[in-house]
Amino acid sequence: MKYTHHNNELTLKDINQKVILKGWVQKSRNLGGLIFVDLRDRFGITQLVIKPENKHYEAALTLRSEFVIEAEGVVVERESKNHQIKTGEIEIEVSSLTILSRALTPPMSVLDDSDALEETRLKYRYLDLRRPVMQNYLIKRHQIVQEIRNVLVEEGYLEIETPILGKSTPEGARDYLVPSRLYEGQFYALPQSPQIYKQLFMVAGFEKYFQVAKCFRDEDLRADRQPEFTQIDIEASFIEPIDIQEVTEKILKNTFKKVLDIDIKTPFKRMAYKDAMALYGSDKPDTRFDLLIEDFKPMFEGIDVPLFNGKDEIRGIRVQQAAHLSRKQMDKLGALVKKHHGDALAFIKKQNNEVKGSILKFLSTEDIDKFNLSDEELICFVPGKLDDVLQSLGALRLELGQQFNLIDPNRYDFLWVVDWPLLEYDEEEQRFYAKHHPFTAPSDLEVFKTNPKAAMADAYDIVLNGYEIGGGSLRIHNQEVQSLMFETLGLSDEDVKERFGFFVDALKYGTPPHGGLALGLDRIVMLMTHTNNIKDVIAFPKTQSAKDQMMKAPSLVDEEQMKELHIKVGD
Amino acid sequence: MKYTHHNNELTLKDINQKVILKGWVQKSRNLGGLIFVDLRDRFGITQLVIKPENKHYEAALTLRSEFVIEAEGVVVERESKNHQIKTGEIEIEVSSLTILSRALTPPMSVLDDSDALEETRLKYRYLDLRRPVMQNYLIKRHQIVQEIRNVLVEEGYLEIETPILGKSTPEGARDYLVPSRLYEGQFYALPQSPQIYKQLFMVAGFEKYFQVAKCFRDEDLRADRQPEFTQIDIEASFIEPIDIQEVTEKILKNTFKKVLDIDIKTPFKRMAYKDAMALYGSDKPDTRFDLLIEDFKPMFEGIDVPLFNGKDEIRGIRVQQAAHLSRKQMDKLGALVKKHHGDALAFIKKQNNEVKGSILKFLSTEDIDKFNLSDEELICFVPGKLDDVLQSLGALRLELGQQFNLIDPNRYDFLWVVDWPLLEYDEEEQRFYAKHHPFTAPSDLEVFKTNPKAAMADAYDIVLNGYEIGGGSLRIHNQEVQSLMFETLGLSDEDVKERFGFFVDALKYGTPPHGGLALGLDRIVMLMTHTNNIKDVIAFPKTQSAKDQMMKAPSLVDEEQMKELHIKVGD
Repeated sequence: MKYTHHNNELTLKDINQKVILKGWVQKSRNLGGLIFVDLRDRFGITQLVIKPENKHYEAALTLRSEFVIEAEGVVVERESKNHQIKTGEIEIEVSSLTILSRALTPPMSVLDDSDALEETRLKYRYLDLRRPVMQNYLIKRHQIVQEIRNVLVEEGYLEIETPILGKSTPEGARDYLVPSRLYEGQFYALPQSPQIYKQLFMVAGFEKYFQVAKCFRDEDLRADRQPEFTQIDIEASFIEPIDIQEVTEKILKNTFKKVLDIDIKTPFKRMAYKDAMALYGSDKPDTRFDLLIEDFKPMFEGIDVPLFNGKDEIRGIRVQQAAHLSRKQMDKLGALVKKHHGDALAFIKKQNNEVKGSILKFLSTEDIDKFNLSDEELICFVPGKLDDVLQSLGALRLELGQQFNLIDPNRYDFLWVVDWPLLEYDEEEQRFYAKHHPFTAPSDLEVFKTNPKAAMADAYDIVLNGYEIGGGSLRIHNQEVQSLMFETLGLSDEDVKERFGFFVDALKYGTPPHGGLALGLDRIVMLMTHTNNIKDVIAFPKTQSAKDQMMKAPSLVDEEQMKELHIKVGD
Repeated sequence: MKYTHHNNELTLKDINQKVILKGWVQKSRNLGGLIFVDLRDRFGITQLVIKPENKHYEAALTLRSEFVIEAEGVVVERESKNHQIKTGEIEIEVSSLTILSRALTPPMSVLDDSDALEETRLKYRYLDLRRPVMQNYLIKRHQIVQEIRNVLVEEGYLEIETPILGKSTPEGARDYLVPSRLYEGQFYALPQSPQIYKQLFMVAGFEKYFQVAKCFRDEDLRADRQPEFTQIDIEASFIEPIDIQEVTEKILKNTFKKVLDIDIKTPFKRMAYKDAMALYGSDKPDTRFDLLIEDFKPMFEGIDVPLFNGKDEIRGIRVQQAAHLSRKQMDKLGALVKKHHGDALAFIKKQNNEVKGSILKFLSTEDIDKFNLSDEELICFVPGKLDDVLQSLGALRLELGQQFNLIDPNRYDFLWVVDWPLLEYDEEEQRFYAKHHPFTAPSDLEVFKTNPKAAMADAYDIVLNGYEIGGGSLRIHNQEVQSLMFETLGLSDEDVKERFGFFVDALKYGTPPHGGLALGLDRIVMLMTHTNNIKDVIAFPKTQSAKDQMMKAPSLVDEEQMKELHIKVGD
């Protein structure tokens, strides 16, 4: 029979009603002959009571945790009420009980506070997902996707699917390959993103496209990366960056309101890439706190600090109330700086109105006065090359922000990082890399042609609390510019023809100006649900070594299967 | 600048309004010095006129088909109106014209009536997709998916994603494999369906799940098959078949109403599998016309027709107004019957009140009278084994239905085929196959245990106009029954453990009764848009030999890439 209610519904207003409930036995206990059962479904818990005179009493005695049961009965008022849960004032006096499914003792607790190891949780994912906290992640994810999609559909974007079996690209090293059975020695590749497909939709005149797209990248994983991930992929024609940014803001505003009931302020702040780097030491600054980077080079002019001699840059961060940090703590910070390629960490500080510091002996009293230290203030300095200095100060800033509790975990700080360089020049390899990807349009075609190192891009990243949650750009819509871009990136004519020939061709037949953006869904859900583990927001995630612990994938396959695919194993 | 209108919007009510339009030059012609341009976007066409005194006249002279332009101007009334299109009473007197993108002469016409070969259309898919008829397929697909999803969300189903990088199954021959870089000699497999994952969601207690899921099957393709296809995947707990059928009917009713403004009647008809086979010779009968199969064996009792001697079955179809079919036409039908394993096609008919037929000489006048032929009626007989007879008569029936125009192409006839056998016994291989899949629940456990050949399943297929558009069942939710099923299907304990161990384990920890259904999205869109080519409803389809003609995938990859994946090419 069908259940009449979920387990979060019944209250005092339902007294005397006959109901049917189904679900899992959260726990079952025998108190003075009465059997009490906490019945759980994904909505909540309701208490059942089975009396000794009940003809199902014997069956009820066999109930154990995680049995699946059906109970029919009448809603009655409880003697001892539980005000923690909505159904806590009633219980069901059971008339009929059916065991639908028995259960072994689960190898892990399915309560929110389960202390199971991650390995166990991944192996028994179907049990881990019974925990309300885990169910909430996926339910929120569901809601978030619906809200994002609602805005896009309303704005006239068409949801169109693109293939998973695609073609390997020149950055093929990160492609997952799929051997073809019909064409010996040939391979499909799983898409790293639907970039080319979505641009072809613009060439085809669809004007506004989106997709909740599965993407694949075979790279060594970090804590917030998965081999397959989901992006909200958006593209539109006849637009400017502001149009894409506005629809993105609308999406996020709506989603935060509907899912979390949080009002976020639009338009978001804008910051140029170079300011983000200079002030925050990051292209995805966490703007929930300050601790901005300052340029101290001018102040050290004429001061002879051996550590700083001959260094391109000396930059640093002032931290209030930090003078008490111990030698050991400063050493740790120094190690962090070095890990991020800073040359060294030097500091001065004023503690109890006394100035101390690692470089104090090189400074005169007048020198010290220039720094204008307030009491308990610490100034950290990092010398070195510009990129290294900024990167390491960026890392130091985040660490200090955390140590000094400057980050409000309940605040959502959105930021557009704009005015990106188009290219990055690798001095060692003597070649250009695309800062975003090879389809990003230069802001000024002349600059790109004559001085590519100085070329800027019509690109924009969206940052939330220090995470890049999306990025986009205007695209090149001219075949000659696209070809020049490939050439600048060092692709041979043959490479271009072999890999992108069809795409360069496509641009020749009337391509509208277009651009778009991709949002990282997994990260957005992660931030909106306050978890810091991306696995929590994916139903069946892989481990950091790309393994499915539950299914045991990847796995060996039959010789026969490999033979059909014309492949052999071996280096 | 942003466009003010799409190209289907402006009418006489907009006269004198200043507008900006963008789009593609459909055609451009010079009439007595005036240049007329048909400007196209995905919404429609608007006529522009550029006068010789316009400072952009020179530029306008260079316009060719498929150039992308921006035009600013004023809406004026046309002298010669075109009542075929909504904007046909006005034109835009252009004040400013910008060429956004030039175009070479396209290698195929982008009009609806393009006569380009399929090969060309697939190679230049981005141009083929400019044709309004093609755009309509994908726009309708977008709408259909939204409407389906709306119902499911409203009904409390959670949209949850499942992995694409999964594990190879025992029917692995049809799996696409993905070599692992981190684990030498091991492979992921792309899912043939999310079946196991969705059942695990039920084990985990999500209760109602759906997904618009990409599925993959590496098999030799037919006209309506693609290596990757999309299914609307649904699963729910604590339900009976009727619950899943009702939500499916709701989905289809809503979608047909909202997208096509067609009212379809629910509940759909139900037909038992054995009736579908007996009457229509098909498990997916096209019920838009009759021509039902009849059992003629009793009527031939005591009649000595050599062709029928010793045959298990003699069944046939009566066709009115078909006696005029020529010898040649009858031979063609005979060939069709043989192609579908029927032994032979025999017939009698009455033409101008004279009885004729291939087996006439074996029949007495009394025998003939028994058949009660009306004038111009034809009766086709097929002798042979039951399955062959029904299958070939099923094919004959469809052919006759088409030849005699009995099929109304504008009618949508839905049907649930129910009461399926659980298993199929292959006499040659002496083994069982699952009629649906190994997770389908037997209707009666005792019958399954004691006489599996007679076991029926709680399975249901949904059929539309002779196409199977979906199928589902209640699932096995008991570990012992699941193990028995694997055993019945001939899987060794080792196979089960290696391939499905985790799943059989999962069933041990409290699994609710559950079931579901999967709808074939591609086919539904195909039927709703009246195309008979599945490629038309997929943005970037593969050919029948699984090739992407545009990208040229699959393709060769670098030795380096293969080495990283620990594979070599060669049999």
